[in-house]
Amino acid sequence: MNTPSRRLPQLSQASRALTVTIPAENERGESVPTAIAGEYPLTVYVDKREIVTLMTLGAAPEALTIGWLRNQRLVASIDEIASVQVDWEVDAVSVTTRDGLKDADQRLGSRTVTTGCGQGTVFGDLMEEVDSIRLPDHARFSETGLYALMDAVRRHESIYKQAGAVHGCALARVGGEGGTAEDRDDCEILMFFEDVGRHNAVDAIAGQMWLDGLDGGDKIFYTTGRLTSEMVIKTAQMGIPVLVSRSGLTQMGWEIARRIGLTMIGRAQGKHYLLFTGQERFTR
Amino acid sequence: MNTPSRRLPQLSQASRALTVTIPAENERGESVPTAIAGEYPLTVYVDKREIVTLMTLGAAPEALTIGWLRNQRLVASIDEIASVQVDWEVDAVSVTTRDGLKDADQRLGSRTVTTGCGQGTVFGDLMEEVDSIRLPDHARFSETGLYALMDAVRRHESIYKQAGAVHGCALARVGGEGGTAEDRDDCEILMFFEDVGRHNAVDAIAGQMWLDGLDGGDKIFYTTGRLTSEMVIKTAQMGIPVLVSRSGLTQMGWEIARRIGLTMIGRAQGKHYLLFTGQERFTR
Repeated sequence: MNTPSRRLPQLSQASRALTVTIPAENERGESVPTAIAGEYPLTVYVDKREIVTLMTLGAAPEALTIGWLRNQRLVASIDEIASVQVDWEVDAVSVTTRDGLKDADQRLGSRTVTTGCGQGTVFGDLMEEVDSIRLPDHARFSETGLYALMDAVRRHESIYKQAGAVHGCALARVGGEGGTAEDRDDCEILMFFEDVGRHNAVDAIAGQMWLDGLDGGDKIFYTTGRLTSEMVIKTAQMGIPVLVSRSGLTQMGWEIARRIGLTMIGRAQGKHYLLFTGQERFTR
Repeated sequence: MNTPSRRLPQLSQASRALTVTIPAENERGESVPTAIAGEYPLTVYVDKREIVTLMTLGAAPEALTIGWLRNQRLVASIDEIASVQVDWEVDAVSVTTRDGLKDADQRLGSRTVTTGCGQGTVFGDLMEEVDSIRLPDHARFSETGLYALMDAVRRHESIYKQAGAVHGCALARVGGEGGTAEDRDDCEILMFFEDVGRHNAVDAIAGQMWLDGLDGGDKIFYTTGRLTSEMVIKTAQMGIPVLVSRSGLTQMGWEIARRIGLTMIGRAQGKHYLLFTGQERFTR
């Protein structure tokens, strides 16, 4: 996928320490050194203009920044970004575009925020976009593959195990139409991000997908978080046809998933799960 | 507290059905009717101007709207609000102020969003405000009171038990300086809200506190959600000196709680908890 013509931005490599240990007292009055997740403000500047402050674990600030700009529809392609430089001395990331943000004043000035834990996306625009999304039909995903995914996620979760208070997201590959049964039963995690906000973790995935030149059509998106409308919409925006969560579902999440034909599985824990929508892509 | 001089807004009573039952398939291929939480867009208009769209369970839309305006610092007092009318036919709530929003253009135009699940509050402004907060010292809270709180919360959680995918918040009363030991061991839940976003549940508490004329100084705030910076800041903004959660803590949540002298307890489940900050208000 990484063709010679792809222009990738220059990136800092500013992942930072992820947990700190603080003293706490337990119910027996004992002092218990307790690992907690880092949480840092990261103010995003695009072409020297201040856009947003994200509160983040700081594990993947460059991918987070790119994915946030992607999911907010402020940039249409990774080609538009020349450079992403994080500087934790000033808790800021400086993004330089090649040709400026298009319609920046209008887009940044008029926005309202959705708050199913929202990030400032105009709800009406999102719903219009949802109706234009066509998810590919060829991806197939088996129960064996689902269990392999859940096992793989458990091995990846590092901050959650140490400190809790974070959400994790993974992008995994599924077997396609032309694949063998073994393909469909396999599940390779391509990337895994944890962050203090579940939307940050999603955005980091979206950013890294752009950086790696990955298409969503033969992928699974896994989140530890709940399947709200925003999570479903973001998955569909990334072109990913299968969404898996260990948590539950909201009504609008369900309605949107049905409308766009997303395969959605929730309450996936141990050997249990509930298949909510898009049964045609799932095989037992 | 409800003095004759308080002017309360005219309110609709538009709480709506909270769960719906959908079909799902479990790991044995059985169809399982599954309750899921409602999630509806609610677009807030203030004096006919569109401000924000909140995604909500819809259990307490009037309190949510008032609390959102309060926590966003768009109104300074409940007196400023003449009317809050929710109309689910158009998924909208119409707020009428007595004298208009002060500096509305400036405040609504310049905002950036924080995203530890943010709602569009300017982070720098929040931190400045945090430093001006003085939490009262007199409130006392005992371990017995904590266990009573956790018991009471379990009895209140209705949507979570049925459908998951929601967060709950409670406001409870604690015994004060002049109270007896029995007072300190008691814990009365004054209000309990569930919503699909944890910040909505907090905002509903903030709105209902205004409607009921309640001061935060002798209260406990309980949340099922994580103790991130925003949760700590909102608790402090409501003037509540004790924050309890069943979940974990982030680094900035801890730092801000220490700075403002908030009593913060996390991982409260069964007979276990961790006391993180503000030990002086807590007795075993």
